[in-house]
Parts: sequence; C-alpha cells; structure tokens
Amino acid sequence: MEIKLKSPLDMHLHLREGAMLEAVAPLSAETFSGAVIMPNLVPPVDNLDRLKEYRAAIYSSIGDEAFCPFMTLFLRDYTEEELLEAKEHIIGVKLYPAGITTNSEGGVASLDAAEVVIAKLERLGIPLLVHGETNAFVMDREADFLDVYERWAQKFPKLMIVMEHITTAAAVRLLDRFENLHATVTVQHLLITLDDVAGGMLDPHLFCKPIAKRPEDREALVNAAVNAHPRLSFGSDSAPHPLSKKECCGCAAGVFTAPIGLQLMAEMFEAHGKLDNYQAFVSDNACRNYKITPPEKEVTLVKKPFTIPKAYGDVVPMWAGREIPWSIG
Amino acid sequence: MEIKLKSPLDMHLHLREGAMLEAVAPLSAETFSGAVIMPNLVPPVDNLDRLKEYRAAIYSSIGDEAFCPFMTLFLRDYTEEELLEAKEHIIGVKLYPAGITTNSEGGVASLDAAEVVIAKLERLGIPLLVHGETNAFVMDREADFLDVYERWAQKFPKLMIVMEHITTAAAVRLLDRFENLHATVTVQHLLITLDDVAGGMLDPHLFCKPIAKRPEDREALVNAAVNAHPRLSFGSDSAPHPLSKKECCGCAAGVFTAPIGLQLMAEMFEAHGKLDNYQAFVSDNACRNYKITPPEKEVTLVKKPFTIPKAYGDVVPMWAGREIPWSIG
Repeated sequence: MEIKLKSPLDMHLHLREGAMLEAVAPLSAETFSGAVIMPNLVPPVDNLDRLKEYRAAIYSSIGDEAFCPFMTLFLRDYTEEELLEAKEHIIGVKLYPAGITTNSEGGVASLDAAEVVIAKLERLGIPLLVHGETNAFVMDREADFLDVYERWAQKFPKLMIVMEHITTAAAVRLLDRFENLHATVTVQHLLITLDDVAGGMLDPHLFCKPIAKRPEDREALVNAAVNAHPRLSFGSDSAPHPLSKKECCGCAAGVFTAPIGLQLMAEMFEAHGKLDNYQAFVSDNACRNYKITPPEKEVTLVKKPFTIPKAYGDVVPMWAGREIPWSIG
Repeated sequence: MEIKLKSPLDMHLHLREGAMLEAVAPLSAETFSGAVIMPNLVPPVDNLDRLKEYRAAIYSSIGDEAFCPFMTLFLRDYTEEELLEAKEHIIGVKLYPAGITTNSEGGVASLDAAEVVIAKLERLGIPLLVHGETNAFVMDREADFLDVYERWAQKFPKLMIVMEHITTAAAVRLLDRFENLHATVTVQHLLITLDDVAGGMLDPHLFCKPIAKRPEDREALVNAAVNAHPRLSFGSDSAPHPLSKKECCGCAAGVFTAPIGLQLMAEMFEAHGKLDNYQAFVSDNACRNYKITPPEKEVTLVKKPFTIPKAYGDVVPMWAGREIPWSIG
C-alpha cells in the first residue's frame, strides 16, 4: 500500500540558525514542499533585513531542493509602512506573549496594547499567527488564552488568526465557532498525552510547550485532523535542541519531528480509515486558506516498517528507535 | 527565632540497600527519630528473614544515632501464621498495585483478590499502607483509586488504612469521611505543583509518583497539614536515585528530601502562622495513630538561611542550590 502526497506543507517549523539550521533544514526540505518558519531567534526576526538574511541562509542550507520557506516576522509595534514593505516577503506575523516559551522574552507584554498593530495586520490582510498561552497552571494555559482568541476573532473579523499548535478539545470547539479562526496541530499532540511525557518515566524528548494534554483533548484533535477540518493544517512545531539541552536538569521545551512527521501521521489517518483526507490536512487546506502556491513536489509514503533513527546528528527525534509502519518511498 | 521538634518522624521513606543505604540512612537518622521503611526492594521485603537482614543493615548504616526503622512487609498472600509472627517486627504491610511505581512489579494484580489478606490484617490489628494509584491518565490516577479506599474503609472498619503520599484535594475530602482512613503527605506535594515539574523547563528532580498535581490540590494538602489534621502525618517518600538515573532520557520517579524536609516545611508552617501545629504533623499524630514510641530526640530549627547542597554524594536533592530561610540548629 502507498499514498502519494502532493506538496506537503509544514505550517509551523523551527529551523534555528548556524550549524543547527544546516543540520535540520535539509531534513524538512526532503519531504516537505514548504514550511512556515518561526521568527523566535536570538535576536528575533523583527525587521526585513534580518528576515532576508535568514531566508538566504535557509535557502543556502537546503541546496537545490524544491522547498519554500514561508517567512514570518516576530510581532512588535510595526508601523504600517514597515508592514506594507514586508507584506510580499511574509506569510504572517507571529505573536508571542512575553516569556511564554523558548526565546519569547521580547514578546508582547500587553495583549491589549498589541491590538494597535493587530488592527494594522487586519487592514493590510496579513495573517496573525499566535502562540496562545497565558502563564496559568501548565495544563490550563491554552484554555485560559481562548478568551483572547474569541475577542480578537470578533473584534477583527477580516483578520486571519491562526491558533498555533492547538492542544485541547476546547480549542477545537472554538475553531468551529469563527470563520476567521484557523489552527495548526503538531504530530506529537495528535499522538501523545501527558501520560507519555510523565506517566511512566519522564521523557524529555516528548516535552514541549504547550505541554501534551489529556486523552479527551488528543481525541478531539485527532477527530478534527482525520476529518480534514477545513481550517486546520499540519504544523509540526518541530524544534531541535542538542542532546545536551534535553537530557539534563532543566530540559528545554521542544519535540523534533521534521523527518518523521509524515510517516507517523500516515498511520493515524489509516487507523481511522481516512487516508483520503491526508492531502487536505498536510497541504490543500493550507494552500487555500493562506493563499499560497508551494513548489510542486510529490512524496510517496509506503507501508513498510521504518525504524526511527536514534538521532539526527546531535538531535534526538520523537520516539527514537521505535519501529513504525510507514516509510518514505 | 527557633522551633524545637520532639522526635520528628518520617512516616514514609525509601532507604534502598548497599552503598545507597549507607549514603542516605545517616542523613535521615541525623534529623529524624524514626521512619517507616518501604519494602519495595529487589527482591521485595516479603518475608521475616529478609526483613530482619534489612533492618540489621539499616542499623549498621546509621551507627549510634538514635533512630528507629519502623519496618514494613511488601503485601502478598501471607498466611495468618506469617503475619502473626511478623507482627511485632512491623508497623504495617504495604500494598502496591502491580507495576504502578518503582519496583512494584511483584505487587497486587487483583485488588479484589487481595481482600483475603487484607481481612487478616484487620483481624490481627496490622495497619495497611497503600500506594493508591490506578493506571488511569497520570493526573487522574490517585482520584481514580479513591473508590477502592472508600470500599475498604467501609468493608474493614477496624483496619487502619494509610493512604500514602496523598496529592489531591479529593483525597483530603475522603480522609475527612472515615475514621479508619489515615494519610501521609510529602514535602514536595506540599510545596510544588505540576507547574514546577513541567511548567518552565522540565525538572527531573521534582518528578515523582504520584506526580504533583494542581494548585487547588496543593492548597488542600497544605490546609490539612498546617491545621494538624489528626489523621495526617508527614511521610517524605524521599527516594534517592543516582544522578545518572535522573538526568537522562527516561528519568526515574522519586524526589530526594530526607535531609531538608524539616527545614523546608518550617517555612510553610510559619507562613500560615501555624508553627504550633508542626509538632503534631511531624510526630505526635503518628505516635498516637500508629501507637509507637520512637527514640527521644530533640531537633532545633533556627531561622537562619541555609543553601541546599547541590548533591549529597551522587544524589541531587529537591531544590538543589536554593537558599531557604530555616536551618537545623
């Protein structure tokens, strides 16, 4: 058995810089036709010069693979002129509440104050991508942010708002309520719960932000994905950290799935008898909603066991060493 | 400011064997007058010969400190004769559901079947100590076991049942309902929530079973402790693992607090204006409920900053390196 995916897209990806970029960007470019590149570097990608340099570095690291990095700017108080000039170079602007995740220290301190720049995005037709968590109790952080999404969905009806890496049944319910709300979901939040992170031994390689939630949350995410919810797309949030930052006291947040996401999700779509919906989830929805045309690329998945490598260079992937039923053909 | 504690007791302690026992037992003996010693060794302490050898090894490791190891047997299908012979050597029998925590593989596979031996404990007046978790979702495991406690509290009204290391508000509410239900609570469950384990960076040194729960759970535990709930005692569940088993992929469950528990909890009792209740929580309740007379020992806590060591030998304690306001005088 095999499946052919046309131009699969990863709508939420961390590529880092320097040696790590060189190591991981080719792994995404191998099986994806494009990816939305997160701007939370140090310093953040918050001006057009930095963005162009970063994009050039990405292109340089992937060689001649057909792969489009859809760039994002880190949200700050941009002028309308800055946004207008940036518009043709970006797929959206990413909002981080200050201090809420990796390299988000320079993020938004006041969500209310951010509405000034958000209104500009709406006027200019630039999507707003959001890391939607508060600093509440770890299991409540996303649910606690949903009020903000709801307020903005109503206040900015023409703005495309993307709830990035949703993890809860409550977020899926909210997604259903507003046509201008969109969402991405990761491999790991479709496959694991907090049980896998901390139910047996503690597994640092499955630790990420937002943290994996309850079984009923995972079930709601899977249902939305396998039924090809029209405003939900795959976004891996694949986030490489060197081994030394994961297996230690004070493990960094992030799961690395870029080279194995497509294989892992094939099993899920198959198990639900929904392989026909896989194309929409990993490409068609995104092309339609973000109005993008990625490079043409066909990826064949075959039902042939594949053992996830123990590491890609210095980066340990999710489920390292595990045998899974689907491989890249 | 200082507080004098008479014969403080740790009603739930892991001492291990061999070199680890030699390393950690003196640390408990220094500030505690006695401790309830857990039997989940490999192989488990499930016969009198093994128990006597283990007790001798504990005495040998603590030198001439006044410290009483209150021994427990690992629950299996004991005969009445075995229990009768063991009775004068033990403070209770510890039930582990099979496979639920460290070294519990030989535990009880059927809780219903275990009622035969539990009935014998009731007839002989031997307390039943329980690791009360099911294999439900990690945040629900204790709450899911409470029905079992309730059933046994009613079915065995003369049996002293100790809900070990409780972590939830629901367990506190159940404790209030049955006179034959008792409980222990650890330092860490009084001081942390899941936020501290996985809310910022992942902290393997705060990972234990049961896992730390929600803020409202911690609040209920603190209220019960500082108000000296008459059937609640301190039990550290201090569980040393070598560094190599904690800061790695697949971190073992257990927090090491034996040498710092008394200092840490002084701050909590002080913050609630309840220092007068500290004696009941760390000794008097246990002496009365378990009918024990530990060796006389007076421990003085002084309000003088103390920096928690980065490690005790190869074992990293909770909050290593942090400065806390109380020290042993």
